Formats: sequence, structure tokens, C-alpha cells
Amino acid sequence: MRISKLLGERIKETPAGINIKSHAYLIRAGYIKQVSNGIYTLLPPAQRVNQKLQSIIREEMDAIDGQEVLFPVVMPRELWDKSGRYSSIGQELLRFKDRTGHDMVLGMTHEEAAVHACLSTVRSYDQLPFMIYQIQTKYRDEARPRAGLIRVKEFTMKDAYSFHLTSDDLEEYYEKVYKAYEKIFTRMGMKDFIAVKSDSGMMGGKIAHEFQLLTDIGEDSIVICDECKYTANMEVAKCQLEENDHVFGIKKEVFTGEAKTIEEVCNLLNVDKKHTCKAVCYAVVGNEKDVVIAFVRGDREINEAKLKALVGSDIAVKDLTDSGLVKGNIGCLDLKIENAKIFYDRSLEGLENFVTGANKEEYHILGVSISRDVKPESFVDITKVNDGDKCPICVKPLKVKRGIEIGNIFQLGTKYTKSMGMLINTPNGTINPIMGCYGIGVGRCLASIAEQYSDEKGLVWPMAVAPWHIYLCPIRIDDESVKNTSERIYEKLNAENFEVLYDDRNVSAGIKLKDSELMGIPVRIVVSPKTLENNEVEITIRETGEKFFVPIEKLSRKLDEIVVY
Amino acid sequence: MRISKLLGERIKETPAGINIKSHAYLIRAGYIKQVSNGIYTLLPPAQRVNQKLQSIIREEMDAIDGQEVLFPVVMPRELWDKSGRYSSIGQELLRFKDRTGHDMVLGMTHEEAAVHACLSTVRSYDQLPFMIYQIQTKYRDEARPRAGLIRVKEFTMKDAYSFHLTSDDLEEYYEKVYKAYEKIFTRMGMKDFIAVKSDSGMMGGKIAHEFQLLTDIGEDSIVICDECKYTANMEVAKCQLEENDHVFGIKKEVFTGEAKTIEEVCNLLNVDKKHTCKAVCYAVVGNEKDVVIAFVRGDREINEAKLKALVGSDIAVKDLTDSGLVKGNIGCLDLKIENAKIFYDRSLEGLENFVTGANKEEYHILGVSISRDVKPESFVDITKVNDGDKCPICVKPLKVKRGIEIGNIFQLGTKYTKSMGMLINTPNGTINPIMGCYGIGVGRCLASIAEQYSDEKGLVWPMAVAPWHIYLCPIRIDDESVKNTSERIYEKLNAENFEVLYDDRNVSAGIKLKDSELMGIPVRIVVSPKTLENNEVEITIRETGEKFFVPIEKLSRKLDEIVVY
Repeated sequence: MRISKLLGERIKETPAGINIKSHAYLIRAGYIKQVSNGIYTLLPPAQRVNQKLQSIIREEMDAIDGQEVLFPVVMPRELWDKSGRYSSIGQELLRFKDRTGHDMVLGMTHEEAAVHACLSTVRSYDQLPFMIYQIQTKYRDEARPRAGLIRVKEFTMKDAYSFHLTSDDLEEYYEKVYKAYEKIFTRMGMKDFIAVKSDSGMMGGKIAHEFQLLTDIGEDSIVICDECKYTANMEVAKCQLEENDHVFGIKKEVFTGEAKTIEEVCNLLNVDKKHTCKAVCYAVVGNEKDVVIAFVRGDREINEAKLKALVGSDIAVKDLTDSGLVKGNIGCLDLKIENAKIFYDRSLEGLENFVTGANKEEYHILGVSISRDVKPESFVDITKVNDGDKCPICVKPLKVKRGIEIGNIFQLGTKYTKSMGMLINTPNGTINPIMGCYGIGVGRCLASIAEQYSDEKGLVWPMAVAPWHIYLCPIRIDDESVKNTSERIYEKLNAENFEVLYDDRNVSAGIKLKDSELMGIPVRIVVSPKTLENNEVEITIRETGEKFFVPIEKLSRKLDEIVVY
Repeated sequence: MRISKLLGERIKETPAGINIKSHAYLIRAGYIKQVSNGIYTLLPPAQRVNQKLQSIIREEMDAIDGQEVLFPVVMPRELWDKSGRYSSIGQELLRFKDRTGHDMVLGMTHEEAAVHACLSTVRSYDQLPFMIYQIQTKYRDEARPRAGLIRVKEFTMKDAYSFHLTSDDLEEYYEKVYKAYEKIFTRMGMKDFIAVKSDSGMMGGKIAHEFQLLTDIGEDSIVICDECKYTANMEVAKCQLEENDHVFGIKKEVFTGEAKTIEEVCNLLNVDKKHTCKAVCYAVVGNEKDVVIAFVRGDREINEAKLKALVGSDIAVKDLTDSGLVKGNIGCLDLKIENAKIFYDRSLEGLENFVTGANKEEYHILGVSISRDVKPESFVDITKVNDGDKCPICVKPLKVKRGIEIGNIFQLGTKYTKSMGMLINTPNGTINPIMGCYGIGVGRCLASIAEQYSDEKGLVWPMAVAPWHIYLCPIRIDDESVKNTSERIYEKLNAENFEVLYDDRNVSAGIKLKDSELMGIPVRIVVSPKTLENNEVEITIRETGEKFFVPIEKLSRKLDEIVVY
């Protein structure tokens, strides 16, 4: 490809409002262009990376007997009514009417379509197990798109669905996909990814893993034990808590006036947060009557994913002043409220001599004992893990890191095959097959690699997914000999199936070298009057900065050694 | 691929309501499954064909310096407002609101997105010419989906956009694309396709060609001269008309009572249709005041595409009784109507002694002369070509055939670059680049090939696009020797990169042979106790029915000869 004709421009300055490295570089290096909030056009370099990512995914899906299909982007409401998700999913599912007034949706995931494809076409147990997958455009009406291709509305995704007779068979296949995913991300050139246990969210099902690329700009919090390799998404991460001190206290109401937050109350009364109990109140989404009150020790934070799983519905933080509660003074003693589900976090277990709200304006209660005064029926785990908490397996300190979710795998169970009536004949009667589903966000992989493998000069593509292998960079192309040699090298390398981006512009060396770095092409070949004095070219490896000269007649052989993946 | 695990079933009977061969076979052979009216899932065999079609297209687009990009499926209204198409395109453009109430559309074509991608990224004349293309899902809210994948709402399309400094440069590139299209369809295995001149429709622009696969179930009428190779879509086809006889007549009003249609009037007055003039009335869509009246000789039919092009707006047949016209008695003499654009077809030129309506109930006028009595300012070509009309080039009789449009190419001009403000700096100031656009319906190619290359037994895929090359068909797989030999052949052929569909089911020979024919796999290999007596297999070529025996040890060599494309 001659850069003079390449669609897209390289720009020096990061456009205003962009503060994520990969986003800035992908725009500055001419990879993507925003069409609307969260909606992008992939320009030629990005589409080349996209295609390479897809090829890797396709090969590994085929290697575990995946059958590629193509589901529709636009689907009728009926399909999503059957699974119940037409009403259970929020606004991120884009619903609209077609010209006849029929309710349609834009696919953000395709469990319904996958089961539909199998209804009546798979009938007998000897057709199982099998896996189908597609690589297709998805749309998710994301409320807050951000960070370029990392959180978008429209994206390319590989989604796969497997069907099994038994849970054992699903588990065995799940393990295969797990390994295929490790291969895929490794082949894409990612080094810092891990698989973590996760919440299965709106997909339903029980066991699920996310593949996370660790990076500081990640949206997810990942809990990791360096010792025993325990990993989990914060949403489901566990830790061991130290036992609370047994310190006797005398219950006593005190005036705390304007002190409302845990910080304010602790300051006023000179107590440690660990000797307080705070309340967080929630509404149950889709059920106006019910509310949820969660009590946790003052030094810990609520993990809403865990709480949501316990409640069994979506929840949203709510001010319960209307229900007679006193904001800032809610306490776990003598709480008077109807239709409330009350949860006590296990951090409160055995807690003595602590402070909680008095459930009246301007007062708190000191010296409360959870076992003497509150007597909850049970304690639950509804808090987040903090950096330094103890590993649930080996008790060593846990780390909390940030990650971008690049893929996920779910053991779905029969949620969809049951609701949609997919039945398989077996020698022992009919059953609903057990499903697994497996996603990889292709565009997000592109952005994650750009984020993690880039430096202060620009992108640094791994060889396997780089848009081109080689940036052929004549310096002083107005020099006849430089130009002729460069053209000859370009033709030769193309013929040898190297992918070459040829900077055929008559611009300064500075612009060319900067562009080659910004675009992140792995190997740069400089041809200049000086290198030609010795009949050489200069090679620079983008990742390491290593530079060396190679005689022109040995160039192809040298590149054979370098361009490997 | 083992057929026992292949998603999809083969069915004997054509489901009710399906009367197009390709539609029936694609469903019966397990290639596609309908999700909603005009919306399909491609099952694995169809997706394999789809991928091969895409590869051919991609290779030929790259060969003419195409740069692959990916535009969004969902686009904001603003983009389509700029070109004016948000309001000018009818209901087939699906419009909806996202969660924030923003007006969005589903892409049915991407001229706007293509220009958007170039705005500010292409600034200088030396960046031109270039061509960008994508292969992406499109949605068109089709009022009447039909014939399986031939007319659908959602489809995969290759669309390409080129940008040029001069019309000459566009024409030169247009010719390149024309040739690339011929290569593409030839490589796909199509034999009966032609390129025809066409109307540029809603795309704007002047010169356009459609690539049509000729088949009786085609939706388009194509006019063809076997002699000089003139071809054109009926919408723009021309023909030479014979001169009208000069027969003097005396103008005279006659009572024609209930006779309203041309047939009735001709019968009553015993005149030939060629000596009548009929009127067809239209409303101008989007403009309530204006109407259009088209007069043509009674034996010819209005070509609404030509008329629409003359009017410059969409038109719809309308009863103009409200405007004071007398339905069935409208004539070209003494016509009294306001705000009417009146057109006279060239078939009326020189017509003498003809019958036309008297513009009053129950009367017509005989003996009218167009030059003496009507004196139109001009005649236009607004009629269809009939089978047997004279070729506009060589005067030989024309044929009218049916075709499916599988691709199209347009010289767009500056419609989009002007309206969207794309400016290029040249040594002589700034200009709006001149565009070409080029489409291929991938799913429609699949269906067209299925339609044209199939027989009474099922599909007959050309080798280059067949989902698999070989149908490996053991007869009596319960026989240990048949099974072992088949497994060995399967492994060996896979290792040799043949694409093999292996019928590993323990079902009757009849079912297997019928399925292999229905699915249309080009080469069938039968392994049976009988063929093994001589250490042979039997090969059948699907297209020709040719059968022969090959010693097992020579099988690979023989297949190397057969599996070529």
C-alpha cells in the first residue's frame, strides 16, 4: 500500500476531550473516525487489524469444531419475548418498529437466534454436542460510550453457542473453549491477560469466566492473588475477613447533630470506621413497593453485583426518606419500615461496641453489639474486596487491578432451550439441551491491544495483528537512486508476500519517521542516500527500538527471520 | 465436517407457500432458516458459500487497489440530512430513535458514510484517485420481501466508493470496476450474466450499469439485442419505432358510451390500437398540487422509470376525476386542467387519423391528427420496449428477458461531495471530487447461483463457491470395512485440504444419495461393500451426472484433476 493513497491522515495533536491513550492514537494515526457518539468507521489500517483478529478467532473456533453461521442483526420481538428478555433487558436493547409497525430489536447478543436456528433442525441426541458461532455486527444502546473502541454502541463480536446433553459434557467443552481463548489472545500478541471468575449477569447461568487484559484504564476491577493464582472479577470476588475484636460496650444514644456520613460521625465521636455500621438503601427496579436495606461495617463498600444476585432483581440506590427513614441516621437497631428486605454483611458478624444510626434526626447509638442487640438471622457477603484483603484460598494479601474484558464464557444451562421449547429426543425421553455461550469483542481486542502495547511515540502492534508488517521509508525520495531502490524493494517484498506500507510521499524525514512510529508498524526499513552508500538499508524494530543495517541483497532473508508470528 | 453434527436438516417436501426453486432448495437442503419476514439466519453450509463469495469479491476489489473499511450499520440522522436523503428516501430507509431520543437510521447504502470518512482525512489532489469498500450487513425495510434470499430486508453487501479529480479519471476507473465485476461473477461460476445500462435511481448520477443474472424468475426486465449485443434494463431501454402511416382523417366526435378502456373503444369503433392515443395520470409524490398526464399510442405501455426521470420526482398513478377529468375519456385535444405537466410519447409523432378521448363523458374523437390538431412542443421517450421492437443500434428485433440484479455500478458525480462539503485542494483551487459507487449483493449472488444452477434433484454449486467440494458417502456404514475405509479417506482428504462433507450417518443409501444431490456438493464419492471388492470408490459429478470408478490409491490424484476452480 502506498501511503500517498491511503485513506486517513496522521495528526500531531490529540483532539480535545480524548484522554485514553489507545483512543488518541487510533484517531491520530488514522485508524478510526467517529460517526456518532459510540459509533465509528474503521479506516483501512483498523479494518486490516480487524480482519487479522477475525482470522485468528475463526481458525481457533474451527479447531474446536465450531460451525460458522450468520444470525440477523435485526430480529422480531417475538423471539425475545420467548426468552423473556424483551422485557427484562433495559434500554441498552434497542427496540424499534419497522414500516408495518412490527416491534423489532437490534441484536446485542444472539442466544435467542441460536436456539431458533436449532429449533426443528436438531432433534436427536446423536446430533449433540455441537457448537455454532458467528462474527457479526452488534448494537448495544450504551448510555455512556467511552474510550474510543473500548466502550461503544456498535461493535463486531464473535459469539458462539454450544449445545449439550449433560452438564459434564458442557463442562468438558467449556474447558476446550477456555483453552481456545487462551490460544486466541496469545496469538493476538497479548501478554497480560487472565481469566477470572465472573458474574453471569443478564445471560443467566451459573459458571462464567471473563478474559481480562490487565491495564490501568480498564473498566473492571479484578482481584488477584499472586501466591495461589486465585482471580475473580470484583463483582464475585471473595476474601477472608479477620474476626472482629470482642470489646464490650454500653449501648447509649448520643447527639451527633449535623454529622451524617461515616467520616463525619467517626470524626465527631473519635471512633474507627471499623466500629461503625452503615446502611445503603435501594429500590427494586420494576417493583415500586419493595426496597432493600444493606448494612455493612463502615470501612467496607457494598458490592452491588453480589447484592443484586441475592435480591434476584435489578436494584438502584434510593433515598428512603419518603418511607420514614432518616437519611444519615439510619441504623440497624429499632428500624421501622415495611416491605424492606434487610441484609447484614458478614463484616458485621461478631461486631461489638459499634456505632449505628438511631433512626431519628441528629442521633446515633454507641456501644451496640450485633449479637446482643440486633440478632440478624444470617449474614451474607455483599461487600467489595479491598486491596490487601486476605485471599479466600491461601490467606495471602490480594491485589486489586484494572482490566478490560476482551472475552467471556458462560455455562448457560437450560434457560433458553427451556423457555424457547427446544427439545431433543433421547433414549430416555425428551430433554432441553444444556447450553454454553462464548463471546469475544473483536473491536475491543483491537483497542485493548492498542492501549496495552503502545508507548509515548504511538502504537506498537504485535506482528500477528499489525496492519502491515513493514513500513518502507525512503528518506529523500527526490533522490533518483533512493526512489528507484525503494520502488524495487517495494515490488520485491510485495511479491514475497510481506505486507508493506510504502511511504512514497515527498515529505521530511521527521514526518515520515514520526508517522511510522505513531502507526505502530513493527518493522521500519529506511532507505536513504547514506544507507545506499554501502548498498544497505536501516531496519528499526518498533517494539524494542533496536536498529541495524542490512545489505539490500540480504534484506528478504533478514525479514524472514523478523516477520514471524 | 461430519454430517451427523452439521446444524440443519434436509427435508423432503417444499414447505407451503414457497414457489421459487432456489428458495425451496435452500430451505430443504438446510442452508437457511427464516427468522422473520425477509430476515434469515444463514446455517453453516450457506455461511460457507457466503464466505467464499466474499473472498472472491475481496480479492478482486484489492486487485483494483480497493482499501477495505468498515462503516457503521447504525448512523445518525445528521449524516443523511446533509445529503438530503433522510427526507427523500421512502419507508425502505428504517428510521428510529435511540435511548436518548436521537434520530438514527439503519444503513441501506453508505455514500454518506463514505464521504464522511474522507472529510478532513483527504485534503490534497495527490491523494486521489482512491477507492474504499466494505462488506457489511445492510437493512432495507422492504415492503414485499420475496423468493428467499433474492429480495430480503437484511443482507450482506459489498459496497465500494471511488473518488476522482476528473470525469475522465472516473470513467477510466469505472471501466476497471466493470472488468473486475466480470471477473468476480465468472469466478463465482456464473455463466448467464450480462451488464446492462440502467437507471441510477435514488443514487443520483448519470451513467450506471447493472449486472444481471438471466433467469426466468428475475424481477427485472432486460432488453437484449442478440445481433449487436445492445443491452439495457427496461427502465432505460430504447428502441427504434416505425414511422406512423400518413392516413388523412376527418376529426369527428362519436358517442362511445360505456367504452372506456382502449380495448373497449377499439372493439366498438373497429380501429387498431395503433390508431389510438391513451392517457395515464399521475400525482407527483410530495407535491399535492402538481399532476402529470402522459399520452402514448394505445399499443404501448408507459415506462414509469423514464417518466419519473423526466418529472424529476417520484410519481404515483392517480385518478384525476377530482381535477375535472373524465376517467376513460381523457384525450389530448382541448384538455382543460391546471398545474399539469403534459408529456407526449414519441410513438405519437406523425400519428394521423387516430382516436382519443373527448374529455367528456361517453364521447371520443375520431380522425385526430397530432400535427394538425394537437401540436405538442416536443415528443419524449416514456414507453417500454416490447419483445420484437427494433434495436436502437442495429434495427434487428429485440428480446425481453428476465434477470436478477446481482451488482451495479454508478458514475455518481458530485451529488454527495457537494452536499456534504468535501473539498480537495488542487493547484487550480478547491473542487468537489467526483464519485463512483459499486455494489454487489452477496446473499443475492448466493440465491441467484442457487436458482440458475440447480436441477430437479436440487442445488448444483459451481466448484469455486460450493460449501464443500466433496460429499463422502459410505453405503452400509455398519460394514466394518466400509466404515474404516471411509474414515481413512476422510482423514486423508482433509489433510490434503479438500473440503469434505462426510455422511457418517447410519441411514439408507437412498437418503444419503438424495441428500448429496439436494445439497448440491460438486463431487460425490461412494464407498460401499461392492466398490471395495475392487478396492475402488465410485465418483459422481453432480453437474453432469457422470459416474466412474477410481482405485482408492489413485483417488487424491483424480480429485486434484476434478476439484479445480
